[in-house]
Formats: sequence, structure tokens, C-alpha cells
Amino acid sequence: VIRYCESRLTPEASAKASILLEALPYLRRFSGKIVVVKVGGEILRDKEAVTALIEDLSLLHLNGIKILLCHGGGPQISEAMARLNLVPHFVDGQRVNDPETLEISANVLIGDVNRNLTNLLNVKAPIALGISGCSANILLCKERDPRLGAVGAIELVRTEPLLKMLDNGYIPVIASLGTDGCGRTFALNADIAAGELAGALRAEKLVILTNTEGIYEDPSLKTRLISEIDATSLISLGEKGAFTDGMLPKVESILTALSNGVMSAHVLNGRVNHVLLLEFFTRAGIGTMIYP
Amino acid sequence: VIRYCESRLTPEASAKASILLEALPYLRRFSGKIVVVKVGGEILRDKEAVTALIEDLSLLHLNGIKILLCHGGGPQISEAMARLNLVPHFVDGQRVNDPETLEISANVLIGDVNRNLTNLLNVKAPIALGISGCSANILLCKERDPRLGAVGAIELVRTEPLLKMLDNGYIPVIASLGTDGCGRTFALNADIAAGELAGALRAEKLVILTNTEGIYEDPSLKTRLISEIDATSLISLGEKGAFTDGMLPKVESILTALSNGVMSAHVLNGRVNHVLLLEFFTRAGIGTMIYP
Amino acid sequence: VIRYCESRLTPEASAKASILLEALPYLRRFSGKIVVVKVGGEILRDKEAVTALIEDLSLLHLNGIKILLCHGGGPQISEAMARLNLVPHFVDGQRVNDPETLEISANVLIGDVNRNLTNLLNVKAPIALGISGCSANILLCKERDPRLGAVGAIELVRTEPLLKMLDNGYIPVIASLGTDGCGRTFALNADIAAGELAGALRAEKLVILTNTEGIYEDPSLKTRLISEIDATSLISLGEKGAFTDGMLPKVESILTALSNGVMSAHVLNGRVNHVLLLEFFTRAGIGTMIYP
Amino acid sequence: VIRYCESRLTPEASAKASILLEALPYLRRFSGKIVVVKVGGEILRDKEAVTALIEDLSLLHLNGIKILLCHGGGPQISEAMARLNLVPHFVDGQRVNDPETLEISANVLIGDVNRNLTNLLNVKAPIALGISGCSANILLCKERDPRLGAVGAIELVRTEPLLKMLDNGYIPVIASLGTDGCGRTFALNADIAAGELAGALRAEKLVILTNTEGIYEDPSLKTRLISEIDATSLISLGEKGAFTDGMLPKVESILTALSNGVMSAHVLNGRVNHVLLLEFFTRAGIGTMIYP
Amino acid sequence: VIRYCESRLTPEASAKASILLEALPYLRRFSGKIVVVKVGGEILRDKEAVTALIEDLSLLHLNGIKILLCHGGGPQISEAMARLNLVPHFVDGQRVNDPETLEISANVLIGDVNRNLTNLLNVKAPIALGISGCSANILLCKERDPRLGAVGAIELVRTEPLLKMLDNGYIPVIASLGTDGCGRTFALNADIAAGELAGALRAEKLVILTNTEGIYEDPSLKTRLISEIDATSLISLGEKGAFTDGMLPKVESILTALSNGVMSAHVLNGRVNHVLLLEFFTRAGIGTMIYP
Amino acid sequence: VIRYCESRLTPEASAKASILLEALPYLRRFSGKIVVVKVGGEILRDKEAVTALIEDLSLLHLNGIKILLCHGGGPQISEAMARLNLVPHFVDGQRVNDPETLEISANVLIGDVNRNLTNLLNVKAPIALGISGCSANILLCKERDPRLGAVGAIELVRTEPLLKMLDNGYIPVIASLGTDGCGRTFALNADIAAGELAGALRAEKLVILTNTEGIYEDPSLKTRLISEIDATSLISLGEKGAFTDGMLPKVESILTALSNGVMSAHVLNGRVNHVLLLEFFTRAGIGTMIYP
Repeated sequence: VIRYCESRLTPEASAKASILLEALPYLRRFSGKIVVVKVGGEILRDKEAVTALIEDLSLLHLNGIKILLCHGGGPQISEAMARLNLVPHFVDGQRVNDPETLEISANVLIGDVNRNLTNLLNVKAPIALGISGCSANILLCKERDPRLGAVGAIELVRTEPLLKMLDNGYIPVIASLGTDGCGRTFALNADIAAGELAGALRAEKLVILTNTEGIYEDPSLKTRLISEIDATSLISLGEKGAFTDGMLPKVESILTALSNGVMSAHVLNGRVNHVLLLEFFTRAGIGTMIYP
Repeated sequence: VIRYCESRLTPEASAKASILLEALPYLRRFSGKIVVVKVGGEILRDKEAVTALIEDLSLLHLNGIKILLCHGGGPQISEAMARLNLVPHFVDGQRVNDPETLEISANVLIGDVNRNLTNLLNVKAPIALGISGCSANILLCKERDPRLGAVGAIELVRTEPLLKMLDNGYIPVIASLGTDGCGRTFALNADIAAGELAGALRAEKLVILTNTEGIYEDPSLKTRLISEIDATSLISLGEKGAFTDGMLPKVESILTALSNGVMSAHVLNGRVNHVLLLEFFTRAGIGTMIYP
Repeated sequence: VIRYCESRLTPEASAKASILLEALPYLRRFSGKIVVVKVGGEILRDKEAVTALIEDLSLLHLNGIKILLCHGGGPQISEAMARLNLVPHFVDGQRVNDPETLEISANVLIGDVNRNLTNLLNVKAPIALGISGCSANILLCKERDPRLGAVGAIELVRTEPLLKMLDNGYIPVIASLGTDGCGRTFALNADIAAGELAGALRAEKLVILTNTEGIYEDPSLKTRLISEIDATSLISLGEKGAFTDGMLPKVESILTALSNGVMSAHVLNGRVNHVLLLEFFTRAGIGTMIYP
Repeated sequence: VIRYCESRLTPEASAKASILLEALPYLRRFSGKIVVVKVGGEILRDKEAVTALIEDLSLLHLNGIKILLCHGGGPQISEAMARLNLVPHFVDGQRVNDPETLEISANVLIGDVNRNLTNLLNVKAPIALGISGCSANILLCKERDPRLGAVGAIELVRTEPLLKMLDNGYIPVIASLGTDGCGRTFALNADIAAGELAGALRAEKLVILTNTEGIYEDPSLKTRLISEIDATSLISLGEKGAFTDGMLPKVESILTALSNGVMSAHVLNGRVNHVLLLEFFTRAGIGTMIYP
Repeated sequence: VIRYCESRLTPEASAKASILLEALPYLRRFSGKIVVVKVGGEILRDKEAVTALIEDLSLLHLNGIKILLCHGGGPQISEAMARLNLVPHFVDGQRVNDPETLEISANVLIGDVNRNLTNLLNVKAPIALGISGCSANILLCKERDPRLGAVGAIELVRTEPLLKMLDNGYIPVIASLGTDGCGRTFALNADIAAGELAGALRAEKLVILTNTEGIYEDPSLKTRLISEIDATSLISLGEKGAFTDGMLPKVESILTALSNGVMSAHVLNGRVNHVLLLEFFTRAGIGTMIYP
Repeated sequence: VIRYCESRLTPEASAKASILLEALPYLRRFSGKIVVVKVGGEILRDKEAVTALIEDLSLLHLNGIKILLCHGGGPQISEAMARLNLVPHFVDGQRVNDPETLEISANVLIGDVNRNLTNLLNVKAPIALGISGCSANILLCKERDPRLGAVGAIELVRTEPLLKMLDNGYIPVIASLGTDGCGRTFALNADIAAGELAGALRAEKLVILTNTEGIYEDPSLKTRLISEIDATSLISLGEKGAFTDGMLPKVESILTALSNGVMSAHVLNGRVNHVLLLEFFTRAGIGTMIYP
């Protein structure tokens, strides 16, 4: 059986090669490193964004990057509560978790968001293990504030089960719930959980996917997008009141990660297709990078 | 600092010693072996029974037995549907899973039952990893019957992630859901899932905890409790119509396991306190044992 | 083939379960830890006590506790000398070892006591390796006192061969003899050898099985049996002359072990059936516990 | 320190992402596999081609592909002989190796070509080990034909040292020399050596880089470039006399490799920049692929 | 600090080098192989012979040969019995072992001969572990003949503990006693035990050290010393009645070993200084070699 | 098949045994240790000396000594240049390396000397891997002196690839070339390269084989051969101008090695047959030993 061709060397080939070559030094740098990615519930409703995200995570994983995916599910929880005619309460930007709310949150986070993320990753290769921070007491918590109900403050991250999963080639997909080790479940802010996980695992990067282009100097105007900023300058910005409620836990998460040895943190727009790939493998970078 | 005592050698001591000694040959036999335990949703609502079950599983695990816990959650799902004024439909004893039902089933099974079982086990030691059969495509399914909606028939059990968890000393707690590897979730009968898991893992034992004393020759009369029975005789009994709807998937599960090399299957009353401990460590055994 | 039963759930079952449950936290604590057990020659002549001891050691070993058994054989040596019409001499409670006595001691300790202990343990499972402290120069000695002849003072415990045996799942059974590494054999007090072994191996426990209930405050009266005592108080008691000749080396052994990091030492009555099991697995403990 | 940017999301970004995504399934397929690449001396003189080749090999290596590079050096040897006013003789397309020629060949192949290839690869990362087939008797030969002098026919490939180097993460760069294991060196045709190496290592691919676009049905006309061909058809073409002297050993090499379990062989134009990258990572493929 | 010398290159140096060089191919062949050496009690009383034997065993061990030393102690046992005015009985060249005789045999073999051999080996390096075949039920026996009392016939050699000791770099020194696995001890003919050990361990060589030069065709005349003989010819010689009582178990041992895959057996005069070294490392060999 | 012999115990046997016994403590001491041997080009032309050297290296390797062989090739390079009518230039005893000279040096060192040494070692067993210091950037250099051309000064020894080869049981044969990690090759003095390698690998010994008996106090008179000298005294001798051009780099090499933890350095006459064997395995030692 013989097949012929006239010429297959198109001008595009050279362009392809040069893009693959640009990715080379980044591959070298990140292979074998741990990267914690946080994805919020709102992005997970954008089907195109999720498809691109799943492709990117698979590609990073195939290149030997150890991925840990941490997710929340705020909009999904609010919607489930709305269906039951329940009104969520917030204190200081944190959802109050009475027993009924916690039950709904847990069901939606693990039973719905986590399961679907896990299933989608497993279409590429059977590598995703969907768990919550309750598994093996990975996220050990105490009660954060009596006014908030079952909202946890992380006291200890038990990294051993995560490291074993990563070493065995799996991607842990972690719903942002924790436990006090005595059987009780706590809701956790997914941004903060991601920062604690990245710090405890001494991750190379913490990537927070959100729905803005990155951090703006003045978020109300959305004029001055910050490309790179160090932790000290970020703290100063915060003291000037630059951050909105949604950004506050992201900033806290980033500072926790950086002060525990994480090399860089990134705030990216999760709705930009293949934003992870572009951040990891292209020279320009994208969004806001925060370094220690 | 000195403390004194008059005499601490009570007559009970000798009784204690003799019970520990009776357990000795069983420990020797089961250490390092895999045991699949299936627990139904109804038992999980009996607080005392659950407490005893958790203690037993911890003890077996500490003695080097590799435990895999598979659970369903029928009553919990029915209750959640009732709260939403939804009526479950059944065909051939199998719940029909339209999209809304599947969503509720998944939420309750993973977000509620699995999380709580995992949390309770982790109170003893941080050893339980709560997952569903969707993780790493462990339970690969196809659609069982178009009339049943998202109800799966297991085509392949991917044992590698489970064997790694067991070898690393963890107890996988598996919600009876599966996936087609293309992103879709299926509900699975937990009895049948447990039998497939036990067979694929070449488990030493399959233990089905239920709410009867075991298998009765005539379940309506509950007079002749079977102590031991071989697979062929069990099949004969089934052909005589001896089994009710609830018992049919248990029998199918047991026969699947035994025909794949599992050494014995057990139907035990999960409401008897410490029924697992008594089955493993005492001479008399308990409930019904089925052997190949 | 079907067998039936009426009811097998006796009231005893619950009692059995509760005793197994009591043992649970102790199993968790001691699994994988090293325990040095010293047994004296007099107990080895009590057939019932030896049978119970062997069963206990097997049970501890099966539960993953790393057992090292060190034994003496004073009465057996005295008897062998009597048969040859030789009279043992003692200086400071230590048997004088002229060449002929050493020869008889070595023959009886290794050829008789050690062999029989090893054989009895191997009836349960082929796990016991009978050696003396001369093997691989495990117990390196110098001459203790010229007046005592071939009586050794331990200078170094070579732990490597013992750790390899323990890691490979064997129980070393060690006759209390040592060597100077130049071909000469020395008799050793078995209590002191056990303390040195426990200290060098950083054992979790040192257990000295003897023929009293434990340590009495006034051994002549046998009224005030000490339940728990710390090392400092034990030294004070000794300075008050509370200990008889037979107890002196036990106290020296215990203090050696505790000062080298052993967590607790125990003096137990080896004639109480299953005294090891009761000490390890029941809440009350038994005999005298000495802690650092 | 804060840096700002207006917008960094260029239209190119999406193009970049799609090319990286195209590479994804190929990475998955080749990671961990062994690939033998043969490069001829003439390509090594084309500086741009060599630079691109080195980049490609580094990229493949970084992606976990186990690369073994086998090279000849015909033009370099001829040039060295010319400088010494020596005239090479050929029999059946094979260079005759009298002692002086062998000496010059060995010097040029190892001392010049191999060293330079190794050095160039090591600029990217210190991963290349430059050896000849004499090292550890990797290419065991006998004399091919008395008329050819020190020209070897490979009798055995000792794969163990190569597998150890590959497993340790190195790229063996092998000069096409062999030994009879008795101290004598033989020149080897590099194409044939590459085919034997690929076959013995059960490589995934054998890639022969040459200075034509691939295999032409009629090489004199260079009209019909073959895109894909199976081994049987290749043999038929050969029997029709389709191959020139330079192509004959390539065809022999390919048939040796394929008959020993290599999955595919490729003849590519080494002067096309990044031809390896395009072959491995793009959908179209390039050059001629031969399959079993 | 400087030291001078005139000339240190003596004519002996070259002789030394050539002897070391002769040893080279033998080292290559035996390194990492298992060799079972049997030494009889009579040789152990010849102090010079023992010293040379110990040096040889150390040298072989240091060169990576895995040595297992099996010993008897007939003369020592007879002497101990004489001291107690006991008369040994023999049936078919086997000592009858009534309970008292077994007790004395065990004491002398383990407590005296084994301990001294172990101690002597440990002077060189702490590598010898003195055990009997009772340890870990290594030599599992049944009663050989009711007339002989506690004389065992080996039914199974448990090689695992021996292989672990050999792999950990130790020399097991084994007293020729066995057990029925139920606590009873049996005396074993050391020649036969050595043959069974060599066969079960698939040893490279079995070496029997005795007090003759090797096997004579007619032992009464001691004229025709056999240098090499195959197993079949040895059997023929035996059928002609060529062997005395002392040689019979040696022949049985050798045939057992050879029929289980041992490559060669050797009967050497243990009183020739460094006979092991000469057998292993010189071209001529020594004594009688028997091959399959 | 039977073969007989009269007597094979010759008086030589005992002499053989005593020489093997003398080697015993040295084997014990060096087994598993790393030894760096430097051999100069002049010795490699003495066929008898090379044969003996190869035998010695094989013997040392077989006894578990980890050998690394570093070689130069000065005379071979000079000869090759002469054939091309090129005149080598020297500055401070270092050959000036213009591009043409470097090319010839590299060709001769790797293509000729290294290949032949490797081939000869592999006749004994396939254990030698012939590489240069360019492989895996093992010898990282900078330019030593602009006047010298491509002559390197070692900045870093990358030991990992060498340790892997040694651990895998191979003998690295290293041609004294280095690289700047940017593709350029540098000639290195082989003495100095050997000293850097020995120091970086924390070798037990550095052995420099040369064509004198060792170090003389006054090399012009060759009267006072130094048997042992410490580093400080060696430095003093140097300050008195005791060393010729050829000896200067040897002294620098030795001091580098000793100051980096090498236990001893040796200057031996490589033309004395089996000088390595005599140095390692006989009591007297040979040549000059330098200690820290």
C-alpha cells in the first residue's frame, strides 16, 4: 500500500515550529513542579471556557506538571438555594452557613460541581480524582466566626495524601470544604483554600482564574491593569482600599501562598480561551503576576 | 511520683485474654487481604449502627486488612426528592433516572452520604478518601436500559487507582456512581457495584450489610435463615423465586464476585452492633455466608 | 449445599465486640514499634505460662509489633551444674564464670533454652530466629570484673542485624551471651542485656517478665505494689535499699533503657496467663510501669 | 514595584493556543517511548539545520521521549582523507577500511562529529553522553567482508547500558563504530547501525534524516514522493531497482527495525528546519513513513 | 614528614602479581553465587586448620561469594557423652538419639561448636549469624526411623530466611538440627543437611571438608585418588561397595545437591591449610570434584 | 567419567594461599570505594604495560572497587601534528591550542586513545564507557589563559552522570577534554583533570601513573625516592623548586584532590607490570604516597 503526496511543506509549518520552540524553555522550567489552580463557580458555567480549561489542564499534566485543581461554586449554590426559596446571608463577604445552607453547599460543591469537573477531565485521560478537603482530613479547620455558622478557618493542610496522588500521576480535584477532624463539615472560601494548599505543598505557582483581566489599580475604573506586582506593593494597594469584596479573599490567598514559598501567583481571566496555556507557554504572560 | 494499687488481676482479665486469643487465627488469615464492604442507605440513618460500623472498619484497617467501602443512599435520595415534591419511578426495582433525578441522586450520594461516611471514618484516623466511581473513570459504564435514563451497567472496573489508594493505606469510600468516560454520569445499584469491585480487585471477601439477618430460604416467613450456602444452591433458590426485589441485586452482586475469584460473600444485618467484628474475628460467624 | 441456623446472636457476642474495641487504640499505638521482652529462666519451666507467653508474642507480632525476645536461664544452668556436681559461685549477685561454668552456661542457654523457645514460637509461624548476642557481634563486651571470670559488661550493641531481622518480619530470640569481638564468649545478665538492647534500638517498651506481681515498695512485706513510678522515684527507692539482689539488675536495666529513649518499662508477673496481652491491650494495665 | 500594561491579548494568542493544542495527542502518545534518530554527516555541515535539529531533540527529550541519536560522518571522513591526500575506496557503496582509513574514520567520527553533536546538545541541558558503539561493547560486530577491511556486520546489540542511560534521563549520542569484543574497532554504516539499535531497543520510531524529501518512487525523476508505504511494498520497490546506492542501506535499516517490532520508520529531509518537531507534533506528518 | 626508600621493587612483586592475576577469572565466576560449605566436628579441633578455614571464608565473603556454613560435631558430642559416662549407640552409621542424647547433642552443637565457629568468623568482621536449622523452621523434618529416636529426615528447606541473611551480607552458620514445626528438635546428619541446603538454595558449589584428600576409588588402599567424577560414575562406584560408613552420607549429600541443580560438589581435606582458597582461586583445583 | 591424580598439593600451594591472604585486608578496605586512575599517553604506547594495566583495572573492578580512568595523550597528539608538519607551541608547560591543534587533539584523544583504552578494557568484560569530559558537561571549563587558546580551567565537575555510571557497574574512561557548556571544547591537562575528578567525587585514592618510580627529592639526581610525604611537605618541596615542568601539574592535581577529601594520592611507575595490583594489595606499597 503506497500513498503519495506532492508537497506537504506549507509555509504554516515554519510558524508552527516556532511556536512549539517558544514553549520549550517554559516546559523545562515547570516539568515536575506543583501548580495549584483555583477556578470559581461562575467560569464553570461558561461551556466554552470550561472546555478550553480542561484541554489546558490535560496538556500541562501530560507535560509532567503536577496539577491540583481547587474549585468553589458560589453561583451554583445560590441557584440551588433559590430553587428552594432560601435566601443566602453574607457577613464580611462570607456566606453564612446555617445547617441547611451547609447541606446544600456540600451537595452542590461535591455532588455537582466537583463531579462534573472530574468527569470532564477524565474524558481526556482517567487522571482526575474528585474529592473534598474532608477526605483524609486534608483541610483541617476550626470554626471561623460563630456568626458565620459552619464556615471554616484552615488550621492545617495534610499534604501527604495529595502528594501521593500527585506522585501517582493523578490530578486531585478538590471541593472547598474542610472538616474539624471530629466529623463536622465546614464551608471554605475556595480562593483561601487554594492559597493554603499552594503554600503547604510549596507549589511553584498559584493560578486564580476569575472573570476580570487581572488586578486593576482602580477596579471601579478598570483602566490601569497591573501586569506585575510584588507582595509588598500589593499590601500597600490593599491598605489604600483598592480591592472590592470579591478581590479581598484572592489577595489574602495570594499573600498566604507567597509567604509560604510559592514562587509566583497569577490572577487570570478564566473566560479567555486557553488562558492557562498562554500563561505557561508564551513569552508575554497574561493577566497579573504577583511575586514575593 | 508513685502510684500504688492493691490488685488489678480481676477474673475478667482471663476472659479478655481468651477473646483476644480467639481472634488470633483470623487476624493471621485476613491481614493484607482486600475486603469490599457494601453498606446501604437505610443503615446509615441508624446512628448507633453507623458508630459501630465505623469502629469496626477502623479496627479491621488497623489490623492490615485493606478495606474498600461502597455505599448507596436510596432512602436519602427518596427523601430529597420528596422535599422537592418529586416522585421517583422504578422499573424492575431500579430507580428511573431522568436528568433531574440523577442530579439529586449525585448530590445526595456524594455531597451528603459519602461526605458524612468519610468524615466519620476520619475521626478515628485520617484514612478515608471519599470519591465516586467517576473519579479516574473507576467505574466505566454504558447505559443499562433506555427506559431507566442515566442508569449504568458497569463495563470495566479500573482497579489501578484503587490499588494505589489501598497500598498507600487509605480506605476508598465509593459512592455508587459511574461514568461513560465521555463526561456523563450514571447511577449504579450499590450492591452490583460492590460485587463488580470485589471481583475486579480479587477481594478476599465481599460483605453486604443489609437490614435482615441474612438470606432466608423463604423471605416472607423469615423462618429458615441460611447459615452457609454455595453459589450453585443460591442460583437454584433464585430460580425457585425465593428472592424479593431488594434481594435480587444482592444475589447478582454475590454471584459476580464469586465467579471472579472472591473467596466468600456475606449478607449481614448491619443493625447488629459490631457485626463486622463478630464476622471477622469470632469462630461462629454470623449472617449468611456464600462460597463459590 | 445449604446449612441453616436458628439464631447465632448470643449475648456474649456483644461482650466479645466490646473487648475487641477496647484493644483498638492500643493496636494503633504500638503497631510498627519495637518492644523488647525479657523472660527469665524460672518462668520457662512453667509450661502453662510459656504456652500463654508464646501465644501472646505471636499475637503481638501478627499485629505488626516488632518483638525482640531476650532470655536468661539461671535455674537451668544451676541444674546442669548440679548434675555435674559443680557448685556455682556468686559475687554481688552475679554468677562467677570459670571456663567450665561458661561452657555449661553457653550450652544450656543456646543449646537448650534458646532452642526450645525458638521452636515453640515457630509452631505458630516460622518467625523466630534463635541466636546469641555473639552472632554478628551484636552484644560487644569487655570483661566486667576479673573476679567474675567470663562475665561481660556490654560496651556496644550492634543494632543493624537486629533491625534487618525485625524489618524482615522475624522475632530475634537472643540468649544473653556476648563476645569481645576477638573470639571470646561472655555470660551476661539477661535483665541488663535486655535494657541495653531496648535502649540501643530505641524501643517503645521494655517488658521484664518475672515471678512477682511487679515492684513492691517493701519487697519483704509484699504489701505496697507500685502501679506507676517515674525513674527518679525509682532511683530514690533504690537508694533507700528497697531492692533485693534479684531486683537490682532489673532496676539497672530499666534505668538504662529509659535514659536511652525507651518510652516505658514494665515489670510483670510472667506466671499470670497472657500477661503481655493484658498489658498491651487493656485499659487497666498490670504490674509496675516505670516511665522516664 | 508595579508594572502596567494596556492589553496583552493579541489575536495571535488564540493561534498559538491552537497549535499547542494540536500537539497534545502526539505528546500523550510518545511520552516515555524510545525513538532512534539517525543523522548523516552531510546535514551536520548545514549550521542552520543542525541548530534546528538540536532544538527539536531537546524539546522531544523534555517531553519525556527517550532519544537515542546515531550518526555517521561520511563527508567529514572524506575531507580528512583528502587533507592527507588519501583516496577512499568503495565496494558496493561501502567504504573500504584499511588500517589508516579506519584510524582516520574513528578520529573524525568520535573526536570531531560526535564531540560536536554532544557539545551542541549539552548547551540546552547537560543530557548528552557522547560514546561510540565500542563502549561497553554495545555494537558487537564481526568482519563484514574481507575485501572491505575493518567494516563490521553487527552481530549483537548490548542494550543494557543504553537502557540505563535512557532511564537516567540521558541522550546517548552514538558514533557508528563497533567492536568484536577482542579489542578491534570496525566502521559501521550509520543507517544500518541505527536500524539495529532501533530493533534491539524495540523503539517506537526510527527516524532517518537525509537530504531528500523522503523516498521517491523513481528517485531519478524525483516526481512521485511516497507519503506512506508498508514494508512489503517497500521490498517490492527495491526488487524493481528503485533505490540508489545511498538509499539501499536506509532501506535495509528500516526493514531490520520494522521486523524487530519498531512501530514506524521515517525518512525525512534533515535540511527542513524543525523537521522532527513537525513530524512528531503536527497532524500532517512529513516525508515518507514506512510501517510494518 | 617525608619518608624515603631505596628500592621497593623486589623480584617477589612480579610473582605476587601473577598469583593475583590467576585468581581473577575465578573471582569473576563466583562473585554473587551461593556456596554451601560443610565442615565436620573433627576438623574443628585442629586449631591451625580452623584458623585457615576462617580466613578463607572471610576472603570468599569479601569477594562477594555468598557463604553458608553447615557444621556437625560428632566428636564433640561423643566426648560430652563420655564425660557423663553415656555410651552412644549407632544404627546404620547414624547416632541413635534418645531424649538425653538429643539434649546433649543440641547443647554441644549450638551451645559449643556453633557459638565458637560464629565467634571466630566474627573476629574478621561481624558477619556470622549462628543459628540452628530450627530457626524459622529452616530445616523441617520428620522422624527418620523410630529405631533412631530424634533423628530427622529433611522434608522441606525453608530458604527465605537464609536468602534474606545472604542478601543482607551475612554468613549463616547452621548447626545440623531440624524441627518438625511442632516444637520437637531432631538431630540431622550434617553432610546430608548441607546437601539439602545446597540443593534448595540452587547453590553454585557444595564443598564438604573432611579428613581425607578426597574420594578414593578404593578407600582401604588410598591409592587411586579421584580428581574428577560425574554423578553417574559415583553411583556406580557406590554400587560396587566402594564407600565406607563415613563416606556414605557424603555421597548421598552430593547426589542430592547435584540432582537439584548445584553445579559442582567437592570433597576436600579440611586439614590442608587454606584448602578453600586453593580450590576456588587456583587453576589446578584440589581434592575430588563431582559434577552432574 | 573418572579422572585420577597422584598428588596435587605442591609446595607452591601454600605460597599462593599466603599471597591471597595478604590481599585480604586491602580488599576489605577498598571495596565499594571510588578510585581515580590517571594514565599518561606515553605509557599507553608500551604494550606490555598497557596489558598489565588493563588486567589490574579489571581485577580491581571485579573486587567492587569503583574505577574511573582519566587519560591524556600528549605524545600521540605530538605525533599526529608531526605527520601534518605542525609544530606544537608550549607556554608554561601547557600546549597552546589554536583551533587546528584543538581539532587534532580532540580527534586523537577521543577517536584514538580513548577508543583503544575502552576497547581493551571491554575485552575482559563489557564495562568501559568511553567518553570525554564534554559528555553531559561533566568537566565545565572557562578559558585558562588567552595566550593558550582553547585550554580550559575546570570550574565545576558535574559528578551525577559519573556516579550513575559507577553505581551501574561501569568504568568511565574519560578523555581530558572539557566544555564551557556553550558548545566550545577545551583541552585539559589530564593530571589536573584527574585531581579535580577525584576531589569532586570524594575518591578514596588518586593514582597517577607516570614514567618515573615516584617523586624524587631531587629529580635531576634521581637519588632520594620519596616513599611517603604529607601535603604540607610536598608544598615546601615545590617552593624549593624541586619539581620539573612535567611534575608541576601532577603536584597541583594531588594537592587539589587531597584538599577536597581524597584520602591518599599515589605517583607510580606505570611501566612496572601490575603496579596497581601491587600498590593496592601488598603490604609494602610502591612508588610515592602523598597523604593530607
